[in-house]
This record gives sequence, structure tokens and C-alpha cells, in this order.
Amino acid sequence: MQQSRTTGRDMTAQDAASVLDRVRTRGPRVHCITNAVAQNFTANALLAIGAVPSMTLAAEEIGAFVTRAQALLVNLGTFDRERLEATAIAVQSAAAHNVPWVLDPVFVDRSEQRAAFARDLIGQGPRALRLNRAEFATLSGNEPDRFAIAAYARGHQLVVGLSGATDLVADGERFASVGNGHPLMAKVTAMGCAASALVAACLGVEEDAFCATASALTIVGVAGEIAAETAKGPGSFAVAILDALHNLDGPTLMSYAKVN
Amino acid sequence: MQQSRTTGRDMTAQDAASVLDRVRTRGPRVHCITNAVAQNFTANALLAIGAVPSMTLAAEEIGAFVTRAQALLVNLGTFDRERLEATAIAVQSAAAHNVPWVLDPVFVDRSEQRAAFARDLIGQGPRALRLNRAEFATLSGNEPDRFAIAAYARGHQLVVGLSGATDLVADGERFASVGNGHPLMAKVTAMGCAASALVAACLGVEEDAFCATASALTIVGVAGEIAAETAKGPGSFAVAILDALHNLDGPTLMSYAKVN
Amino acid sequence: MQQSRTTGRDMTAQDAASVLDRVRTRGPRVHCITNAVAQNFTANALLAIGAVPSMTLAAEEIGAFVTRAQALLVNLGTFDRERLEATAIAVQSAAAHNVPWVLDPVFVDRSEQRAAFARDLIGQGPRALRLNRAEFATLSGNEPDRFAIAAYARGHQLVVGLSGATDLVADGERFASVGNGHPLMAKVTAMGCAASALVAACLGVEEDAFCATASALTIVGVAGEIAAETAKGPGSFAVAILDALHNLDGPTLMSYAKVN
Repeated sequence: MQQSRTTGRDMTAQDAASVLDRVRTRGPRVHCITNAVAQNFTANALLAIGAVPSMTLAAEEIGAFVTRAQALLVNLGTFDRERLEATAIAVQSAAAHNVPWVLDPVFVDRSEQRAAFARDLIGQGPRALRLNRAEFATLSGNEPDRFAIAAYARGHQLVVGLSGATDLVADGERFASVGNGHPLMAKVTAMGCAASALVAACLGVEEDAFCATASALTIVGVAGEIAAETAKGPGSFAVAILDALHNLDGPTLMSYAKVN
Repeated sequence: MQQSRTTGRDMTAQDAASVLDRVRTRGPRVHCITNAVAQNFTANALLAIGAVPSMTLAAEEIGAFVTRAQALLVNLGTFDRERLEATAIAVQSAAAHNVPWVLDPVFVDRSEQRAAFARDLIGQGPRALRLNRAEFATLSGNEPDRFAIAAYARGHQLVVGLSGATDLVADGERFASVGNGHPLMAKVTAMGCAASALVAACLGVEEDAFCATASALTIVGVAGEIAAETAKGPGSFAVAILDALHNLDGPTLMSYAKVN
Repeated sequence: MQQSRTTGRDMTAQDAASVLDRVRTRGPRVHCITNAVAQNFTANALLAIGAVPSMTLAAEEIGAFVTRAQALLVNLGTFDRERLEATAIAVQSAAAHNVPWVLDPVFVDRSEQRAAFARDLIGQGPRALRLNRAEFATLSGNEPDRFAIAAYARGHQLVVGLSGATDLVADGERFASVGNGHPLMAKVTAMGCAASALVAACLGVEEDAFCATASALTIVGVAGEIAAETAKGPGSFAVAILDALHNLDGPTLMSYAKVN
């Protein structure tokens, strides 16, 4: 599935720089079903990196938006009837038009209904699953180590992008770790949601979902480190990371990247 | 309709300064039906300029809010059933109480249902229509040049405020161009939505919708230029434009304004 | 009811510092039913102070979130059917599991339906009611002076936290005034909503609702003063107050606090 370009190759900082360059050049349209808390920051993160966000949830038109997009994000952060209905239509449209999508199963560790819904969605073909350790443990029933995420990725034919002090990415055959990031990222709401949206943006320009996911996590981690250099707290950090995403170029990305 | 004060007169920077002064002094209440992505930034832009925003969509109470407001914004950015129902009630209340309103037909170029809904709303008496080139082309079927927007404004008895590198404003008899603004404005989500909200704020203190629309676009364009002087990217730009809107005074506005 | 720790004692800056310290150490989970305009800023304010926000409104899962939270916020800023239904379930869950909650009756002065709903909620046992002068006048039918808020607090067995140039806090027996704050706080949307969320965070670590409410209003007022020292307008102020909340420590809080 994901073996197009880099099967057998490790992920490199140069791959991430190449993906970043294509996002800037092509401006992929990313349709986002995401929670109300995250919508504004997510849209701004996508614009900062050069993608074009749309956010409608209306059942009557979401199919049209997804069909014309290069990638789709499904984030479960606020899990209401409108979003449930929108998700069903969007995922069907994505499948019909071969639009890649990423699932962010926010807070599945807090509600069994939400976990059940996430498991059902995982069966419907997301290319990538971006989540944190507690969410992975809830969905898989296993501790989130290298073996568990590789097995889960293989079993479900998707790429797992696990956020943490070090991010881990696995597609069942390959494995990457991303050592970039900063503790202030955990102090800004919607940072993980925005990271998932950047995974979608990268999926819009890179067929290899493993490379796209690792690239996105590298980009957001590096932007976080650059933002932390000037931030005075989480308020100014949230502003500075948008600036950093906008100003990030390939050489800077490669000089900061800790991906392998 | 819009011929109260300045019929036959060109739009001047001094007119914009006068409108700004009245917004500051009177603090018009602006009720906003707008998309979830834009709500926070729009409310902050209105507060920064001295207006008083409200945002409820509840069918049971939106009539009361509109009736007590000096202007109404209808933005189609997230076009769901709740907002459809809210819009129907709000537009009726606005007509019944002579509350001026502005329509922002976000993304009508992406969905035919949305374009049809916008056309229906245009028949219900908005004083101003603020939109971008792709949206105008979709609604009018014409390229957005001076003649087309003047013809559209005349035909629909409203003011067209068209955003672009140079903003164009027409009411069918008069024509203004606003050369202010900055490319970073396109890199922040909800910037156009906030501009439409400022049009509403200006409509709340200025009966001449042509003057109100041109004033609002001048104010937001000038604030954008001032913000860009210190911004390091789209994150800090979004912050700085709120500061600039708050700090803008008549003399500064006139010294930057490129309206004629 | 609220007489656990400090009955008969005045509120001191040291009490506020102690509450702040416990929020930082324990990281209380705060579930928020709040309006779409305020969700992002509220979540960031809670994270900045060390609390853990959640925001879902889905009827199917809100009970699970409230049950696992240390405090609940009910804010009426956007008063739609989804939030009405969510509130009914959340308030029941809070009562069943002894989770303290705070009510913020935003804009009850603008809509009679909203005021009626707020009155009904006040009968269901909130520990604290945070509101402004116009909202208090609407709910109580009285001018918001010391006697009126003390009488209202006693009659409804809750703590009233009234925002203004000087904040007033009363539980019917005790009385505190908080002289901290800055005029720019009125120029940023959702600032009052975030203050109410901080009241909830403090209720999550302090049983005495009078002390929790006065502490939260002191913390947010001091953070506002610190933010104003560097802010250039409401945009940078909103950023700086999140930084200030994050960086605030006990000694700094005590040196700024004007609570008695």
C-alpha cells in the first residue's frame, strides 16, 4: 500500500524537506472535520504551511468539499451528531475519489462510545492514525512500544504516528522516530489536532503515507523548537509556532531535524 | 437607497476617518451569524475597533439579539442546519426593525447548494455583499471587473465590496478602490470574515452603505499594513492586526489610506 | 455549605497562592460547556494555569467526562439545543458524583429565555455564579451592591463572583473584594468566560467555594495586570495573559494581589 517511493529506505530529513517543498508549491486542499476548539488554530497552521483548509460539516455539501480536496482530516475531539453524520459522508467520498485521510482519535481513553466509533472508522481505510500514548493503549489494548505500534500498523494497513517525548512512526515494515518538539506543545490546546492536519496536508502531496506522516511530525516538531526559542509562555508559543511554520525552509528543517 | 449622505461624492480618507470615529464613540452592537472557525477572531476584531459583538445562533433568542443590534453579519463559512434556521429568523428580524446587514458568501465557489442559498439571501435585502473574486464569479457568472460589479450592485440594489490586491467597492452609481492591505492577510484564517464584520460595524453608524463598506475595507487594509510592519509571520500578524485596529486613529488612518 | 476551611476568616492573598499551587500540582480536570467563541481561549487559559480541559457536548458521552472531572463549567454564551441537552445531563452527573460546578450566565440581560434558563439552573446547585453587573441585575432584580449580592448568595446557597472595576465575592456570610485587573480585559472576547473556567479549576482543588472563587478572580486579575505591562493592544494582551497565567507563581501573585 504505502510502498510507492521509499520502501526499504529509512526516513531522512531530506525526505521531510522534499515534502515541505511540495506542500508550499502545490498548496493542497485539506478538508477538516475537527472539533470546535481546534478549528481556528488548525486552519491557521494549514495556511502557515501553505495548504488550503476548509472546515464545513454540513451533510449537504461536505461530499463536494472532500471530492475537491487532496486530503481529509477526521478528528474526534468534539463528537456530536453533526460531526458523526459528516464523517460518514466524508469517509465515503474519500474512498470513492481516492482522497487520503488521517484519523485523530482524540480522547478515546475518556469515553467507550468514542473508542468504539474510532475502531469502526479504522476499519474504513484511513492512511494514517495520529494519536498519543493513552489513546493508542485504549485502541490497541497494548502499551505503546515499537513492537506494538508496528503490529497495529501492519494489522490495520495504516501508518501509526504516535506523539510523545519522541514521536514514533510505523507502517508495519518501516519505523521512524522523531526527536523534535518542545514541552510547551503540550500546553497549547489543539497542537496535536494541528499536527494531524499537517499529516493530512503531507498526505496530499506524498503518496507514501509513512513518509508523509514522519515528515509532518518532523515539521511540527522543528517549528515547535524554533517557536520555543523566543516564546515567553504558551500564549506567545502558539503565535510563534505559526510564524515558524510559515518561515520554515528546507535547509532550516534539515538542520534541526532529528528523524531516523 | 444608499444615496443619503455622499451621493455623487467620491469616497475619501476623511469619510473613513469619520466612520471610524463614530464606531469608537457609539460602540454599535453587531450580531454575527458566522462560522465556528471565525467566531473568536471576528469577536476580537469587533471589540478592537470599538463595536460590541454577539454571536448566538439559537432560534429561540436570535430575534431578540438582532432587534437590539445596530447591524447584522451573515457569513456562510460553515453552513449547517442551525445556522440556516438562525439566518432565516435573523434576516426577517433585521427587515422588520430596519437593521442593516451584510452578507459574506464564503466558499460559494465550492458548493452549488451554498451558492443557491446565497442567491436566495441576496434577494432578501442585504445592504452590502463582501466577497472575493472567485465567489463573485460564481454568483454573477461574470469576471469581477469594475463594470461587472457595478452592474451587479445596481441590479441587486446593494453595495459590492470585492476583496483582492486592490479592493473594489460599487453601489451601481459610485465606485471606489482601496489599495491598502498586505499579502499576510491571506495567510490568516477568518481575515475576510472579520473584514465583513467590520463592514457591519460601519453600517451600524453610517447610513450610506457605500461609504460604510469602503470605510471598513480601508480600515482593515490600513490595520493590515501597520501589523505587517512588526509581524514575523501569520501568527504574530493576526495578533498585531488586532492591536492595530485598537490603536488606529483618524490621522493615522488618513495618512495610510489609499482610497479613491 | 462552604464553611469547610475558612469560615469566619477573611480571604487573603496567601489563600489565593495556596489554591494556585494546588492547581499546578494536581492538574484538575475541568469539563467545560461553553460557547464556541470562547472554547479555544478557555482551553488555553486552563492549560496555562495547569488544569486539564475537556469540551465535548455530545449527549452520549458528556456524563462520562463530567464523572471523571474535578469540576464543571456551564457557560450560556451560545445557547443552542445541543448545549441545553448537554447541560441537563452534565448537571445531573455533577450532582450524582459531587463534582462542583460554576455557572456563567452570559448575556442573560439580552434575552428573557436565557434568563429563565439561568434561573432554573441556579436552582440545581451550582457552587458559584460568576457574572457581570448587567447580568446580576437581570437575575436578581437588584442593583449589584454588596448587600444585594450577599443576600442573593445567601438565598441561593452559592457564591457570587461579580466582575467589575473591582470584583466582589460573597457567600452570604463572608465578603471579599478583588482590586486587580486591567481595562484591556474588556477588549478581549471570552475573558470573562475564561475567568469562570478558572473559578471551576480552583473549585476542583478547594472545597471552600468562597475561597476558590476569590482566588480565581485574584489570579486572573493579577495575570491581566502583568500582561498589560507589555501588551500593545488587545491582540498582544490576549497572548500575554496566557503567558502570565503560565508563569505566575505564589510570591508574584501575593505581591500583586489586592484582595481583602
